Amino acid sequence: MEGSNKQSVDEPRQSSPAGLIIRQKEPTNLEMPFDKVDSYITPTELFYIRSHFPAPRIDVTDYQLRIKGAVRNPLALNYQELREMPSETRTATLECAGNSRVFLVPQVRGAQWELGAVGNAEWTGVPLRALLERAGLEDDACEVVLEGADRGTPAEEPIPPGPISYARSVPREKAIQPEVLIAYQMNGRHLSRDHGYPVRAIVPGHYGMASVKWLTRIQAVREPFQGYWQTSDYGYWDYLDGKPVRRALAEMKLKSVIARPRVYETLLPNRSYTVFGAAWAGETDVTEIAVSTDDGQTWAEAHFIDPARRHAWRRWKFDWLTPNQRGQYTLLARAKDANGTVQPDGHDPNFGTYVINHPLPIEVLVEDPSER
Amino acid sequence: MEGSNKQSVDEPRQSSPAGLIIRQKEPTNLEMPFDKVDSYITPTELFYIRSHFPAPRIDVTDYQLRIKGAVRNPLALNYQELREMPSETRTATLECAGNSRVFLVPQVRGAQWELGAVGNAEWTGVPLRALLERAGLEDDACEVVLEGADRGTPAEEPIPPGPISYARSVPREKAIQPEVLIAYQMNGRHLSRDHGYPVRAIVPGHYGMASVKWLTRIQAVREPFQGYWQTSDYGYWDYLDGKPVRRALAEMKLKSVIARPRVYETLLPNRSYTVFGAAWAGETDVTEIAVSTDDGQTWAEAHFIDPARRHAWRRWKFDWLTPNQRGQYTLLARAKDANGTVQPDGHDPNFGTYVINHPLPIEVLVEDPSER
Repeated sequence: MEGSNKQSVDEPRQSSPAGLIIRQKEPTNLEMPFDKVDSYITPTELFYIRSHFPAPRIDVTDYQLRIKGAVRNPLALNYQELREMPSETRTATLECAGNSRVFLVPQVRGAQWELGAVGNAEWTGVPLRALLERAGLEDDACEVVLEGADRGTPAEEPIPPGPISYARSVPREKAIQPEVLIAYQMNGRHLSRDHGYPVRAIVPGHYGMASVKWLTRIQAVREPFQGYWQTSDYGYWDYLDGKPVRRALAEMKLKSVIARPRVYETLLPNRSYTVFGAAWAGETDVTEIAVSTDDGQTWAEAHFIDPARRHAWRRWKFDWLTPNQRGQYTLLARAKDANGTVQPDGHDPNFGTYVINHPLPIEVLVEDPSER
Repeated sequence: MEGSNKQSVDEPRQSSPAGLIIRQKEPTNLEMPFDKVDSYITPTELFYIRSHFPAPRIDVTDYQLRIKGAVRNPLALNYQELREMPSETRTATLECAGNSRVFLVPQVRGAQWELGAVGNAEWTGVPLRALLERAGLEDDACEVVLEGADRGTPAEEPIPPGPISYARSVPREKAIQPEVLIAYQMNGRHLSRDHGYPVRAIVPGHYGMASVKWLTRIQAVREPFQGYWQTSDYGYWDYLDGKPVRRALAEMKLKSVIARPRVYETLLPNRSYTVFGAAWAGETDVTEIAVSTDDGQTWAEAHFIDPARRHAWRRWKFDWLTPNQRGQYTLLARAKDANGTVQPDGHDPNFGTYVINHPLPIEVLVEDPSER
């Protein structure tokens, strides 16, 4: 485990067993071991899997996508018809809104995600806008509800009276942006079943819960949708005239995460070690990363590996000369965005068990095993 | 991620970032990424950490170990006096009784351990027997209670009225066996704080909860100890004349775990891949490992890497020719012990959220990335 402290972050590292960390067995909730981030694009087999219910089995020959509600020409497309429409390919980072929940103390309900419920992939599909144009979106439609084929009775209070389909709305102004895709490919191949085969939504810049998998229905609505997954779950408390009001989570918040070293990794003293990570923001760009190796007492600037690209993460690195003094050290990374916003110092309780975007402590041990 | 399928299991693999997986941030509950098992002895920095309360800080100059209760000569030893007694070094596997809990469906309470809440280390210390002889254990003492300096109010019902110290009893017949140590070294170095510095118990063959960390008190008792951690927690239901009675968990049950491949790892088709794992039993030896690559329909025999050694794990390997047919495959491993016992097919509900020792499914993907 000692090994070389010196790493190249630009070259792929030695291939090693990958696989995912199980956070929940059924439904399938698996996390990427985040120290495995080596490339700008997350390989599909390393991309986290977040499911609310068992993954439906959809036969592509039976597949139908219905577009209805506040539209002039409700329509239904089969898979072939969707594939024949002009497509686009976009890179987008998806992060689960509950990523890093294991860092909340005291512990809270929900899957105990650490760092790896996030990934950056290339998505190919038809812009939602093109479908809404074809269906003739009414002027008074305020939101577009995306509904999946996955169904069940959710666990968190208030619990609806019977099984419901997974569904989330996207505000009209976001739904008509060119980046929002009705996607059928991930990283150049058809979607895997766990990632929404045959068709899913991709809402770049929003937390993963907006990118509905196994998408079968698109419904334009004239009043805000108050579905389970934007009120009971995936909601937060905002304040209106001092009174708390419930709102749906949407845009991803600014965040930077250390991929290497990993928690409790042992590093050699007095060596160059490249701290490596990734950072992302919702609808803006990450412009600066600061790293602390003394639990936030002092900070230094890290260097970006990737250019700023809206809706995609930027990997970064920081060359650390590890201390001579044996002991435990706490590393932190903190991002700043193009608006001058920096990550908050702690978790905002109005977000409940979601939006854990403060700098996350990575404790490492510095010691020389040969001197034991 | 593709990489070479062919591995040597006898040679250490390329060093790669190690570190641990966080299952609970506070108190510290960290798991070994089990695909990192490369050596017979688990390096200390990879050994899982299971804590019930924050780790106490003990100054070794103040440290005292008291031996009292049903003994003729109650005594107290300081750290130096303990170190001056004749010591022994033994290899023992410790497994958390809740290891693999994440495989239980539906999900149950408690840390969602996957495979890595187990490790095999060398422990050095004074046999408990020597201390009990020195203190003059009374003939009518039936158990020995081991008490740590860690304290708090536990979370599971029935909850005691106030903070209590972590304590567990060992039956007399086990306590006087030569393998039970009052240990101050792990893998040749003083214990780390997370592993019980300066002194802990090691009860080989029993689940980890018996190996009390931060040990400060040894109390011989004349009636069975009914403490929280052997009645409320770490207990199971046995049957006496058809009536359920509560008993304390003790011996580790026979178990075999696949370390590589890892869940959702992608393997190349039609290649030799060495499936690799470890198996252990409580008070007997593991004598046989069967591996299935088709979810239990057919089984083949694996080969041991390590000899049988009471209280320590045996690593094993199995050469698999991966199928030509792309798809998902479920791997299982099943051990047999010297008594002819084999692992059960499923989890016994009498053990509640503990003793998850049935063959655990490892789903892998077989496909050739170049043919995508």
